[in-house]
Amino acid sequence: MNIYYICLLKILLIISFNQAKVIEKQSDTCREILGDDLIREIGSYENVRDEILRYVIEGDFKGKTYDELAKFVDKFGARPSGSEALENSIDYIIDITRAEGLNDVITEELEVPHWTRGEESITMLQPRVKNLSVLGLGTSVSTPPEGITAEVVVISDFAELENSQEEDIKGKIVLYNPMYTSYGATTPYRTQGATRAAAKGAVASLVRSLGPFSINSPHTGAQTYGENVTQIPTAAITLEDADLIRRITARGEKVILKIEMSSSYDTKISRNTIVDLKGRENPESLVIVSGHIDSWDVGQGAMDDGGGVFISWAAPVILKRLNLQPRRTIRSIFWTAEEVGLVGAYAYEEKHRDENHNINFIMESDVGTFAPLGLSVAANQEARCIIAEILKLFESINASTLVESNSAGPDIDVITNTGIPGAGLHNDNARYFWFHHTEGDTMNVEDEHELDLGAAFWTAVAYIIADISVDIPR
Amino acid sequence: MNIYYICLLKILLIISFNQAKVIEKQSDTCREILGDDLIREIGSYENVRDEILRYVIEGDFKGKTYDELAKFVDKFGARPSGSEALENSIDYIIDITRAEGLNDVITEELEVPHWTRGEESITMLQPRVKNLSVLGLGTSVSTPPEGITAEVVVISDFAELENSQEEDIKGKIVLYNPMYTSYGATTPYRTQGATRAAAKGAVASLVRSLGPFSINSPHTGAQTYGENVTQIPTAAITLEDADLIRRITARGEKVILKIEMSSSYDTKISRNTIVDLKGRENPESLVIVSGHIDSWDVGQGAMDDGGGVFISWAAPVILKRLNLQPRRTIRSIFWTAEEVGLVGAYAYEEKHRDENHNINFIMESDVGTFAPLGLSVAANQEARCIIAEILKLFESINASTLVESNSAGPDIDVITNTGIPGAGLHNDNARYFWFHHTEGDTMNVEDEHELDLGAAFWTAVAYIIADISVDIPR
Repeated sequence: MNIYYICLLKILLIISFNQAKVIEKQSDTCREILGDDLIREIGSYENVRDEILRYVIEGDFKGKTYDELAKFVDKFGARPSGSEALENSIDYIIDITRAEGLNDVITEELEVPHWTRGEESITMLQPRVKNLSVLGLGTSVSTPPEGITAEVVVISDFAELENSQEEDIKGKIVLYNPMYTSYGATTPYRTQGATRAAAKGAVASLVRSLGPFSINSPHTGAQTYGENVTQIPTAAITLEDADLIRRITARGEKVILKIEMSSSYDTKISRNTIVDLKGRENPESLVIVSGHIDSWDVGQGAMDDGGGVFISWAAPVILKRLNLQPRRTIRSIFWTAEEVGLVGAYAYEEKHRDENHNINFIMESDVGTFAPLGLSVAANQEARCIIAEILKLFESINASTLVESNSAGPDIDVITNTGIPGAGLHNDNARYFWFHHTEGDTMNVEDEHELDLGAAFWTAVAYIIADISVDIPR
Repeated sequence: MNIYYICLLKILLIISFNQAKVIEKQSDTCREILGDDLIREIGSYENVRDEILRYVIEGDFKGKTYDELAKFVDKFGARPSGSEALENSIDYIIDITRAEGLNDVITEELEVPHWTRGEESITMLQPRVKNLSVLGLGTSVSTPPEGITAEVVVISDFAELENSQEEDIKGKIVLYNPMYTSYGATTPYRTQGATRAAAKGAVASLVRSLGPFSINSPHTGAQTYGENVTQIPTAAITLEDADLIRRITARGEKVILKIEMSSSYDTKISRNTIVDLKGRENPESLVIVSGHIDSWDVGQGAMDDGGGVFISWAAPVILKRLNLQPRRTIRSIFWTAEEVGLVGAYAYEEKHRDENHNINFIMESDVGTFAPLGLSVAANQEARCIIAEILKLFESINASTLVESNSAGPDIDVITNTGIPGAGLHNDNARYFWFHHTEGDTMNVEDEHELDLGAAFWTAVAYIIADISVDIPR
């Protein structure tokens, strides 16, 4: 036992020593890249930082982000792409923005998918009768009116599907039951599951909800039908029911389900919303903060992505109230139709492609607004050094971590992939996928103080980037 | 800061010193009460303990408790009082017990309530249309076919209800929204809420689900109508919806709900199940282990109380397999109709009242079968000293804590309240009320290894109590 303990201690010491060396080297390199003047300049923002943090965390803005978010999601509830609720919520956020004296607000129209969930039920008929909780996946077709009744075949991964004999899949309901490891790893079973099952002759496909924890809570989400395959109905079931079916079939018993689902699909006009707090010296240069205002059609879309919208709404509001006008323009964008394929972001990128050189830095919050920890940065090393130096100002609220990432956020990746530097809010979101795309995405997930911290951090970081003497390098 | 720190340290030192003194004194007292011979005798059970622990945790029984519980709850699902599923599940557990060569199995019939949930829905009509998740409370009456449509009045506690003017309650739907502190503290709002609201003229009552955490998961449970008041429909809604309604009304807006509920109520015959592993010297003397086999009509009743039933089923099975026949009889009881008012336990106590002097010790597991920590003991000091000495044998699996309690478990309190010593399984159940009485009470809550630990502990403790030379004092 003792020898293991000593070994473990040694390994830990070596790791932390090497880690320390890496950080020190990184720090040395950044010091060279930035130079003493820029480091001093960034450090000089500590007063502005204090002013913003104090105003939001203890001052007149305390609790405001939570309250405004609650009023918003309580009033409109879920805001699926193409819905009236979404358009009404856009009108509302424009009104409350103008009420703050921010009048540079425009919207840009675009066509968006409008998929509407109808009645949905799944009943296990064999080996016993039991209702399953279900959420159809976005864009799923309906079943015939009499439903689909068939045996289930449980599939752990795509390799197992591909290795299956066609007669084992044909006429069956495929249930994808991959254990959750990460959202990225399991998402293909939701997005491509129906297409790949249909190619093997399945009559419907189900997916184990993408999440690590459940209280019988199904998770919906987007899926896409491939070309030249039959469009079969597809839905998510709960971890509990997926495990139940797995256990029963593993005992050699047949599971027969009856699936009844209806839905409709057309397109509507929606809008991206753009709020500008014009810069005092380089108004054409933009520092963008953003979140998506649409949600899935379950829960309230408070976490995904009401919180992201409201800290991005708060940034220009707070700066306006504090009479802080940075050198460059702060632009808040509330993307529409993110959930159904980043439709708003693609439309914005296309429309503004000729002016994209004006984007100095772009930020998005779309993985929760729990306690802020720092930024997840997609940019070159020089840019990362500047951001890292700025983040040092947020050690007091434990938000100075810079995560290097290829992806800054789903919507803004459309823009950062063209070489523009950007970042996502890195936050304490370990439970994010407990609630994601479920009826549990409500204000109960949000915390007033954490939202204050997030709004303060988001605002102060955007201000400093928008105000420093240098542009963010690309 | 420093002075506070020193003071805190001092206080902590004093507390732990005093605590240590209390434990030492307790230990001294117990040593006197028990005497060296009994202490030595109890210590001599370490070999039997090892044999049982090894067999269940690493040997042939490893995983068996989980597997048998899973087969059981997967086959029958929820087992509400009066249902066919419950009676079939009783037949099944008798079969698998006999298959183990345990033939001293009897059942005792009794009349039980049979409340059946029909269709249930709650729709918020104002300020916007939204469906609420709902679970009617057991014994709730139906609404009229057209439902009940009324304004909601949110009540924090009974004092607020009693202080309300009758015109503020009359014709309204009362929503009890007490914040969860403990199950005990909030249960009266579920059990008596309808009666107390009806006395003030309410047309229906709702209760914030009794639990500290939710993914939009309502919790059902028992309620009782008082005499001479109108029986109004009553249901649980989720934490999320209760908070939504609270926030909306706090903003001065009206919330109007439409409640539609149906149910039926009659009585049926059910059975307590009694399995005896006869004692080799004092077969008339009983050490009882128990859990309740009925459940609510949601989820699988895996946690409440499938786990308790199956570790109690495992005890005689394991002892039989290991050929360990204690001095006294080990009796396993699977209570029926616990959820609807401890009906099985009351019937047993009444039927066996004349022989209750034969109960040497009675145990129940009904607050989860997470990792065992020890026992929650309702007995006099001499008895507690014996149990504490036995629990010392379970330090290696971290299950040697004795909690002094007035309540050993809901069913067995009917018996311990007559002066018979008993204990409940004290286990690591911090999340118990996340799942209690919800659709989330499934096998996903259970852990194979923790069930092995629980079964091994339960069996070994029962064996030692049933085998030692002294009776448990009352």
